[in-house]
Amino acid sequence: MLEDTIVAIATPLGEGSIGVIRISGPGAIEAGRKVFRPKKNINWHIKDNYRLVYGYIVNPQQEEIIDEVLLSVMRGPHSFTAEDVVEISCHGGIVPLRRVLQLLLRQGARLAEPGEFSKRAFLNGRLDLSQAESIIDIIRAKTDAGAQIAMAQLGGSLSNKIFTLQDKLLSLLAQIEAVIDFPEEDIGEANLQEMSRNCSEIIKETEQLLANAQTGKIYREGLQTVIVGKPNVGKSSLLNALLREQRAIVTEIPGTTRDIIEEVINIRGIPIKIMDTAGLRETRDLVEQLGVEKSRELLNQADLILFVLDATTGLSAEDYRVLELVRDKKVILLINKIDVASIGFDTEALKEFFPKSPILKISAKKEIGLETLEQVIMDLILEGKVTSTDQVFISNTRHKQALERSMDHLQEALQGMKALVPPDLISIDIRSAWEILGEITGNTVGEDLIDRIFSDFCIGK
Amino acid sequence: MLEDTIVAIATPLGEGSIGVIRISGPGAIEAGRKVFRPKKNINWHIKDNYRLVYGYIVNPQQEEIIDEVLLSVMRGPHSFTAEDVVEISCHGGIVPLRRVLQLLLRQGARLAEPGEFSKRAFLNGRLDLSQAESIIDIIRAKTDAGAQIAMAQLGGSLSNKIFTLQDKLLSLLAQIEAVIDFPEEDIGEANLQEMSRNCSEIIKETEQLLANAQTGKIYREGLQTVIVGKPNVGKSSLLNALLREQRAIVTEIPGTTRDIIEEVINIRGIPIKIMDTAGLRETRDLVEQLGVEKSRELLNQADLILFVLDATTGLSAEDYRVLELVRDKKVILLINKIDVASIGFDTEALKEFFPKSPILKISAKKEIGLETLEQVIMDLILEGKVTSTDQVFISNTRHKQALERSMDHLQEALQGMKALVPPDLISIDIRSAWEILGEITGNTVGEDLIDRIFSDFCIGK
Repeated sequence: MLEDTIVAIATPLGEGSIGVIRISGPGAIEAGRKVFRPKKNINWHIKDNYRLVYGYIVNPQQEEIIDEVLLSVMRGPHSFTAEDVVEISCHGGIVPLRRVLQLLLRQGARLAEPGEFSKRAFLNGRLDLSQAESIIDIIRAKTDAGAQIAMAQLGGSLSNKIFTLQDKLLSLLAQIEAVIDFPEEDIGEANLQEMSRNCSEIIKETEQLLANAQTGKIYREGLQTVIVGKPNVGKSSLLNALLREQRAIVTEIPGTTRDIIEEVINIRGIPIKIMDTAGLRETRDLVEQLGVEKSRELLNQADLILFVLDATTGLSAEDYRVLELVRDKKVILLINKIDVASIGFDTEALKEFFPKSPILKISAKKEIGLETLEQVIMDLILEGKVTSTDQVFISNTRHKQALERSMDHLQEALQGMKALVPPDLISIDIRSAWEILGEITGNTVGEDLIDRIFSDFCIGK
Repeated sequence: MLEDTIVAIATPLGEGSIGVIRISGPGAIEAGRKVFRPKKNINWHIKDNYRLVYGYIVNPQQEEIIDEVLLSVMRGPHSFTAEDVVEISCHGGIVPLRRVLQLLLRQGARLAEPGEFSKRAFLNGRLDLSQAESIIDIIRAKTDAGAQIAMAQLGGSLSNKIFTLQDKLLSLLAQIEAVIDFPEEDIGEANLQEMSRNCSEIIKETEQLLANAQTGKIYREGLQTVIVGKPNVGKSSLLNALLREQRAIVTEIPGTTRDIIEEVINIRGIPIKIMDTAGLRETRDLVEQLGVEKSRELLNQADLILFVLDATTGLSAEDYRVLELVRDKKVILLINKIDVASIGFDTEALKEFFPKSPILKISAKKEIGLETLEQVIMDLILEGKVTSTDQVFISNTRHKQALERSMDHLQEALQGMKALVPPDLISIDIRSAWEILGEITGNTVGEDLIDRIFSDFCIGK
């Protein structure tokens, strides 16, 4: 249990009906009690756990009313942080929230650092590290699928998988250490084969986890996409057509400003982030605007390029200039304006440039071929694999890298077994593999890493 | 009780730890129950009033987990709207909140209109109209003093005052109607004098209420202020000096972006809104930039003008140009740069132009004279009156106008009494005065006005 009591505004700042202030730590209840006056129940008491109490926040010096609130106490360990927690539901403006916050700071609480509530939940053992990390993924999710994957992770799906792998590694280590402890005994062919088999099995399971890491990352972070093509080819029409359905959904939700989700298209649960360069939406040429070097840089960052061509004109010199820039990238070729006319587009030349890229005929204006485009984007991302968000997804690059490092040691160990390397050397690799997996759930993680992970959180989380 | 059940996101949208969804109406509890699964207490029941229950929001079709939440039921009439209310404390991101909201919309709730929760609180008699209006003032308060005045109004300070006035008007009306009912009796000198005295008393109390309306409005809406002066006279130094202390306070509060409170300076609780025209902050001349007409318009909107002059150069032709523009306005003259040199500024010429304006010598750069400036601004706003935020403040223009209209009828009635106008005509004025006061608390208000008032609220409130 940590010694100090932290406080922060837990809701986004802005104009809203409700704003919540959260206090956690040994002094939370005392701080809350000093400034809270229940409206009716004069006998309001610390024992009112998980109960909403209606009343006022007052400045205890003058008993001046600061805000009308609902207050609740969640005593540790049954709280978000596993410490005593008080949540105060205030009026949701900046001034009332700031007033209540400052009052609580004067009662001995200190301002929480970013992610400090989640960090305490982790340090107090209520969540493992991958669960704590999933919280920020839920909050920042860009699509339903992304939120779902993060929810599964919060539920412990990934941690359970990692714990299982770690268990298997411990068994394997026990086998190896038995051999080390009794060096006079012969390892024995059968023994060795079993160890190899067990090691291979762990490798296979790690591979399976890693297999969807790319997809997981896209669900979490979105697919960086650039729409390219010569002027007036219909780039902004395409973007608008793709956005149309989204906007309809978005405007259902009051207050969602265009800014926040602007440029993120949700295609079957996958967030497609159209890079936000004003130029791309205009009719002017990307290359012309930015210069070859800049454009190349932008295109290199992209996960996917939608290259729009004009069915009414065929390939032009300008098209060839862009073709050169994107030929090594993941590209979908879109022959646009098929509603107007087709001059018998020379797709052969295109296929020569992009033997692996799908070529689609569309009309952004008439919304022809867009469903196929969505399917093709899906196929490209999933690489033909069938995925369901029920699977355990590795969506966090930190987790992926840990799995890969663990894998390196496992491979090393397996080769060692085959090469009859002394067992004490093999055991070092197995131990490392086990330890590195522990970085994901946090049971073998250093303080530095913990600090770094939580500092990326928002305040109040 | 209204028939339909409404739902909305009640916290500001953005990235935060907590986001709250509020449901109100006869179907609120049922909607909540359909989608909520408590984590432990399987016997969770509707009767768990004012209790926080930890659990999950699930899509009832597939029992798929949508979010991990705290849910609470507040059964009417003991709730914000006086209807059954369910509040769901979700993860504070746009996607998780949108998912839960959409799920609830599918359970038969409809999206709440702006201010609809407060409107229901009013229609169900839990708050009167001036109390409901104070909620949005609390949320939008720009300073502590503004929040305090709004809190007092929520507490019923204004309503009580209005109810008292209305009571007195009813007594007066009874007196008059006794005369109407028994026309054969002589009104009598004594009787008439008493009625006049009562009417005068009500007029006096109304006057007292109106006396601080200007100040109240400034506390609520801020004082529109423009800083003018020729290039390089130190306009932006002055703004920065005034802002300096504020910024320090502001940066204590995480996440408060400069955007939100930018240009609002808090001088002893009074929000001073420096008009947000980029030009004003630069060293270039306002008139030159905007042209005479535009500048005049801008200056006409201002409640206060801070006119900065240069102590090192004296009055220049440019100064005279601005002087002409602002001579009819509320102006404070600031002779800046007194730290550098004073050429014996000719304040006589200034006094000729502005016989009533304070003239201060300051140094924005060295922060000399700024405290005096703050005091002078305060004095100007309060017009020498001593005010305390404990008073009943008329801060809302709607209330002020109602009081003024009520006052017109009272004056008419008083004159009528003195002129021995027939009592039935006097009673019409008294009745009107009473009715107009009722518009403030809402007991005599039309549906149109109610709709207009609440549509200015934010969604979820």
